[in-house]
Amino acid sequence: MTADPPGRPIAVLAGGVGAARFLSGLVRVTPPERVVAIVNTGDDRLFYGVHVSPDVDIVTYTLAGRVDTGKGYGLAGDSFAVIEALAALGHQTWFRLGDRDLATGLHRILRRAEGVGLAAVTDEIRRAFHVRVRILPMSEDACPTYVELRGERRVHFEEYLVRDGAPDEVEGVDLGAAGAARPAPGVLEALRSARCILVAPSNPVVSIGPILAVPGIRAAIAASGAPVVAISPIVGGVPVKGPADKLLRGTGHEVSARGVARLYRSFAHGFLLDTRDAGQARDVEALGLRARAVDTIMRDADAAAQLARTALALAQELAGARADASPA
Amino acid sequence: MTADPPGRPIAVLAGGVGAARFLSGLVRVTPPERVVAIVNTGDDRLFYGVHVSPDVDIVTYTLAGRVDTGKGYGLAGDSFAVIEALAALGHQTWFRLGDRDLATGLHRILRRAEGVGLAAVTDEIRRAFHVRVRILPMSEDACPTYVELRGERRVHFEEYLVRDGAPDEVEGVDLGAAGAARPAPGVLEALRSARCILVAPSNPVVSIGPILAVPGIRAAIAASGAPVVAISPIVGGVPVKGPADKLLRGTGHEVSARGVARLYRSFAHGFLLDTRDAGQARDVEALGLRARAVDTIMRDADAAAQLARTALALAQELAGARADASPA
Repeated sequence: MTADPPGRPIAVLAGGVGAARFLSGLVRVTPPERVVAIVNTGDDRLFYGVHVSPDVDIVTYTLAGRVDTGKGYGLAGDSFAVIEALAALGHQTWFRLGDRDLATGLHRILRRAEGVGLAAVTDEIRRAFHVRVRILPMSEDACPTYVELRGERRVHFEEYLVRDGAPDEVEGVDLGAAGAARPAPGVLEALRSARCILVAPSNPVVSIGPILAVPGIRAAIAASGAPVVAISPIVGGVPVKGPADKLLRGTGHEVSARGVARLYRSFAHGFLLDTRDAGQARDVEALGLRARAVDTIMRDADAAAQLARTALALAQELAGARADASPA
Repeated sequence: MTADPPGRPIAVLAGGVGAARFLSGLVRVTPPERVVAIVNTGDDRLFYGVHVSPDVDIVTYTLAGRVDTGKGYGLAGDSFAVIEALAALGHQTWFRLGDRDLATGLHRILRRAEGVGLAAVTDEIRRAFHVRVRILPMSEDACPTYVELRGERRVHFEEYLVRDGAPDEVEGVDLGAAGAARPAPGVLEALRSARCILVAPSNPVVSIGPILAVPGIRAAIAASGAPVVAISPIVGGVPVKGPADKLLRGTGHEVSARGVARLYRSFAHGFLLDTRDAGQARDVEALGLRARAVDTIMRDADAAAQLARTALALAQELAGARADASPA
């Protein structure tokens, strides 16, 4: 490990599955207590009266070693008795929430009704799951992400993804709620004090986008003076998982590592792209980012750990360069 | 069947397990569509954020043939994944609500949040369970029953029964909320139009008591002109099930069939007591009630049907007597 002062965290901007895998790798190469995940809550929604926080839950369950690895979300071995009973009572049940997963969302809404803030509840849940990484929701305010579709239709992101199966006809994304939200307690402090900030290989439009849209977060990143390293979620022109291609295209961006780098250039300093996209490294460098072409496919825990190690190494290299460049 | 005009219901004042068994017998000897159960909601409570209506659920599940017959409540074969997950998240889980049972309470609170009245939701649920008996909550208002214990302690009835294991130190019962509640839509109409009114063998203090405490219900019973037949839940000086002895004693009543008859004398005309208590029949008659000593133990469906048949026969006999007594 490095000789950084204790307490300076590694902050990770995180969405769901990709971020969760990356964080699993990160905790194999750095003490988990040093890691703070700042997680997108734009996907949050009430389902069946309980507060589901898809990305936060995926990160929590994955770091707990309890995620359903086949699906990438939900709890391994969960049952579906409640949802089946609700279906029999006439409810629409396209969001297939498992029983134990529902208990998490029920706990979240019950505690919030008791006046406990979302950040504190999130912390309770990760502790109950014996997760040592600190998990922070980006905001305690409701900040639903809406996807705008052809024909002036507008649906909540989970409706777009889960109910409608991520159709191709995206015309835009509405992050207005995130844009009017306050950062959750601890978020700005974690960013300002970070020794480095990593942007997980998550959907840049609907996972990282909402986090960056919360007022104060970009400024805190800049104020930290910390190196910011992002990992491309696009490999060979397609997303590793999920509908990032449709959302990038629908919002006018190139579906490529280079396209993602362009989205991040205003605040990032380093960029990891896949070896398959090594040809784009020069374009990324031209944007002012230091680029590294590496294997970004986290096919197992070792691969995820290696990717995290590379990201940390690039951050350290950038920190050195930034220190050298600062006036003596 | 009798030649009563269609549409004149048999109304049954009902608590939980005893009433549910009695109703199961009743629907074997009369068309279920003719039966209206008016059910105690004094035990209702939010558990884990869902609206549990213990007596209504027991009646519904029993009539659906889906009750856990071993326990007398809950759904047969239900799982407990949610409650176990909530326990792991730090919740007190003395109220062991099954997953499918929780879905019923979740449906109830979600629909009520949508503005649907409790009576309509209750009807939705019984229809989803293919129950043909009409099930009405006594009131749509919250009317929690409190048990007053030695040392000026006061607990919700479910705390008394389930959490504390029905201790002996009862000093009183507070039905004040029921006394300030409005009857649910349909309750007064069902009573006023009833061809007969049966009082199921339920706890007279905390099951039938709250129903009778709701303003307007006693008057509707009286206005119906229908014969009212009650069945004693006390056999040989002890309750067939539950803590009726402690509650009768604690509220100053004799723990006997005769003691129950005294509680009901102001509105009932007939009374079925167990053959074991045949010696009390004369005392019951002296209270102005026509008494029949029969086998009241519903050990199986046939026994429950026989008890229901006897109750209906006594009601018919009383109806004849009342018609004879009325001016020509």
